[in-house]
Amino acid sequence: MTTTQKTPQPKTQDELVDSITQLYAARDLSAITHELEPLHAQDIIPVFERLNDKQRAVVYRLLPKDQAAEVFEILDPALQSDLLHGLQDAEVAQLFVDLDHDDRLWLLDEVPAALATRLLRGLPEEERVLTSALLGYPQGSVGRRMSLEYVSTRASFTVAETLERVRGRLDDAETVYTIPVLDDSRHVVGVVSLRELLAADEATVVSEMMSQVHTAEAIEEAEQAARRCADRALLAMPIVDRENRLVGMLTIDDAIRILELEESEDAARQGGTEPLRRPYLSTPVGALVRSRVIWLLVLAVGATLTVQVLSVFEATIEQVTVLALFVPLLIGTGGNTGNQAATTVTRALALGDVGSRDFWRVLTRELRTGAMLGLLLGALGFAIAAIAFSPEIGLVIGLTLLAVCTLAAAVGGCMPLLARAVKVDPAVFSNPFISTFVDALGLIIYFLIARSVLGL
Amino acid sequence: MTTTQKTPQPKTQDELVDSITQLYAARDLSAITHELEPLHAQDIIPVFERLNDKQRAVVYRLLPKDQAAEVFEILDPALQSDLLHGLQDAEVAQLFVDLDHDDRLWLLDEVPAALATRLLRGLPEEERVLTSALLGYPQGSVGRRMSLEYVSTRASFTVAETLERVRGRLDDAETVYTIPVLDDSRHVVGVVSLRELLAADEATVVSEMMSQVHTAEAIEEAEQAARRCADRALLAMPIVDRENRLVGMLTIDDAIRILELEESEDAARQGGTEPLRRPYLSTPVGALVRSRVIWLLVLAVGATLTVQVLSVFEATIEQVTVLALFVPLLIGTGGNTGNQAATTVTRALALGDVGSRDFWRVLTRELRTGAMLGLLLGALGFAIAAIAFSPEIGLVIGLTLLAVCTLAAAVGGCMPLLARAVKVDPAVFSNPFISTFVDALGLIIYFLIARSVLGL
Repeated sequence: MTTTQKTPQPKTQDELVDSITQLYAARDLSAITHELEPLHAQDIIPVFERLNDKQRAVVYRLLPKDQAAEVFEILDPALQSDLLHGLQDAEVAQLFVDLDHDDRLWLLDEVPAALATRLLRGLPEEERVLTSALLGYPQGSVGRRMSLEYVSTRASFTVAETLERVRGRLDDAETVYTIPVLDDSRHVVGVVSLRELLAADEATVVSEMMSQVHTAEAIEEAEQAARRCADRALLAMPIVDRENRLVGMLTIDDAIRILELEESEDAARQGGTEPLRRPYLSTPVGALVRSRVIWLLVLAVGATLTVQVLSVFEATIEQVTVLALFVPLLIGTGGNTGNQAATTVTRALALGDVGSRDFWRVLTRELRTGAMLGLLLGALGFAIAAIAFSPEIGLVIGLTLLAVCTLAAAVGGCMPLLARAVKVDPAVFSNPFISTFVDALGLIIYFLIARSVLGL
Repeated sequence: MTTTQKTPQPKTQDELVDSITQLYAARDLSAITHELEPLHAQDIIPVFERLNDKQRAVVYRLLPKDQAAEVFEILDPALQSDLLHGLQDAEVAQLFVDLDHDDRLWLLDEVPAALATRLLRGLPEEERVLTSALLGYPQGSVGRRMSLEYVSTRASFTVAETLERVRGRLDDAETVYTIPVLDDSRHVVGVVSLRELLAADEATVVSEMMSQVHTAEAIEEAEQAARRCADRALLAMPIVDRENRLVGMLTIDDAIRILELEESEDAARQGGTEPLRRPYLSTPVGALVRSRVIWLLVLAVGATLTVQVLSVFEATIEQVTVLALFVPLLIGTGGNTGNQAATTVTRALALGDVGSRDFWRVLTRELRTGAMLGLLLGALGFAIAAIAFSPEIGLVIGLTLLAVCTLAAAVGGCMPLLARAVKVDPAVFSNPFISTFVDALGLIIYFLIARSVLGL
């Protein structure tokens, strides 16, 4: 964007949103067209995310046809689905036909089943066969996210023959820079890049110049395949069936999109909410509540454990009320230590830096880390509480911090690995969950230490 | 990987790590070479991440020269830096010379200043000038991450002339698929893809076929530029100076690397730790402690606020001990609600879905969401506490939950925006920080409500 480069990006975006909202309020529709027409489709997205359903449908219709199609294509699938409700059936069918196979799948995952069936039925026969083929792969698999518009070559072809094939597909293939090499039974045996082809002698046989290939099986988890594609900086990765025959290509932009969604999901789960699956500002408040209430209830029920633990020690609290003063500090510190460990290990899992087999390694590391942190905080806690209250109270606080930190780090570090081992998203067992668990355990430790040190 | 495709990926990796460690223990070094030689450099990385410094240096030397160079190139910069300590000066110098300019910068950011200077001095004059040019950009800017090995063309050139230039750079340019178009003063005026060039008539003038270009200024934050590059699915994005003259290209693989690092950083901060900046298993326990202790101390000091708040209300607790039983539940729920809001807004900020200007919008949404959650939990809390203890206690608990949830969601939602406004990483003010803040506030609300309801 050469023109907007001079002013800072966000301001321009903000001004645009303001201006569109004002023009909309003033019902100056032609001015809206005028304002949006010269923009990149990508720059119109923030406007769409900030409009409500009705406004969005109106503004969408104000865009010139080509631009509208472009905007629709890169819009968040959840918003695509919303938008469809505001449009005529014929328009909807046309939009759907114009999408690539893989983009169609993103949208089909969002819309109600009845609409999905109707949309599929509206496709020309040939397109429907292809889209249905993708739908045959399990939800969450890379097969659903792959592109079917690629160029492949044969190991026995020459560079010239391969370039000829590429030239024939320049207009419609989604990816032409990475070209999988097949044997006579469509098995993927290597890969060549367009760049290598251009640099090579035209008479060279492909099998002599192809490189080793990274593939993913179509039924593999999309996240895993996307991570591999991104880590290895592949512009596109061949997707194969069980027999290693080519069935599609995962392009880097789809890989990025998959990973972004997964990271949003991890981030959400770590904060104890369900992922929104759509931009924040276009999420109705009711949906925000729904994304949070389940976890909040689960955690609140878990937290009643702490009420029960405390009621067991009610007599102790009555005897030494000062013990109650430290409850939030102690469980807070335990929760924080547990969260730190869980966060670190969850991220390491997502990046593939640790796996279930590293369980003992992680446990030992976290026990040591927790103990060192506990010693430090415990010494400090002892000093402060001893001065402010009494040496006995200081001892109770110090010992509890040591025990709670060690325990919390170990629990926090191991939970995500256990979750992965039982095939649950590691982020689910993460922060708030661990806090609640460690809270109850920490309180028991606290009062047991207090009883024995204070001789109650 | 056609051959390893049959067995699940992680198992193979694990077996490999086991096997190498065993061979190392048995000092069967030639078997290690034998085992690693046929592998992709990328597949050797997990082994390197699980070895200690000494083992890593030994195994590294066992690799054939070319493979070693490849492994080094894609190794985490922190591990590159570790590895350098175990190698001879001459080897180090050679490895450094063999890296691309932009990879050199990643490494230079990791090594001690003295080594950085020595490495730079060891470069051939011409290379040193280029690398130093990158070093001139501020830390964290995209200028430090861009590639200098690109092909550009002129608006007045024909397709044939441009293709000629591309062919001349196929061997050394880092990116040839996206070609920035310059005017006579090197201003970026457009972009053409290699694909479009191949599809076009050879006599076409570039200015007639070029597309609008997305650029980033070299001093712009790397994260921001990388997000734009990834969002728009650009294989490479031209980087320009203040006058919009081309100075380099950001490639998609570097953009992914930048975003991955930023996401690790966000995830870490959200869990209240400093980012590790290296793979978990290659991080010494001491470094784990350091990454956590500062935040833990800050939070613990913050938590002493809760001790003070409670000591103010000590008399109330002595009168009605049962109030103490609900403290962990109430502050836990407040903390969780705050975390949920903070997590959601932090992620929306990272994705560019909300900005500082959306402050009021976010505040209103979170107040409403918090109030709805509070009503729900409050009603439930009232019912349970009223049955288990007394209607008065139920009323105290119910009202407190309503107030705390509303407050926590509002605080949690706004903190990340405020952080961004004062140019602090929003994730810093996230979960544990917000919990601690909300804890103290929640306790005050709780005891004030208790006093007035119970007439203490």
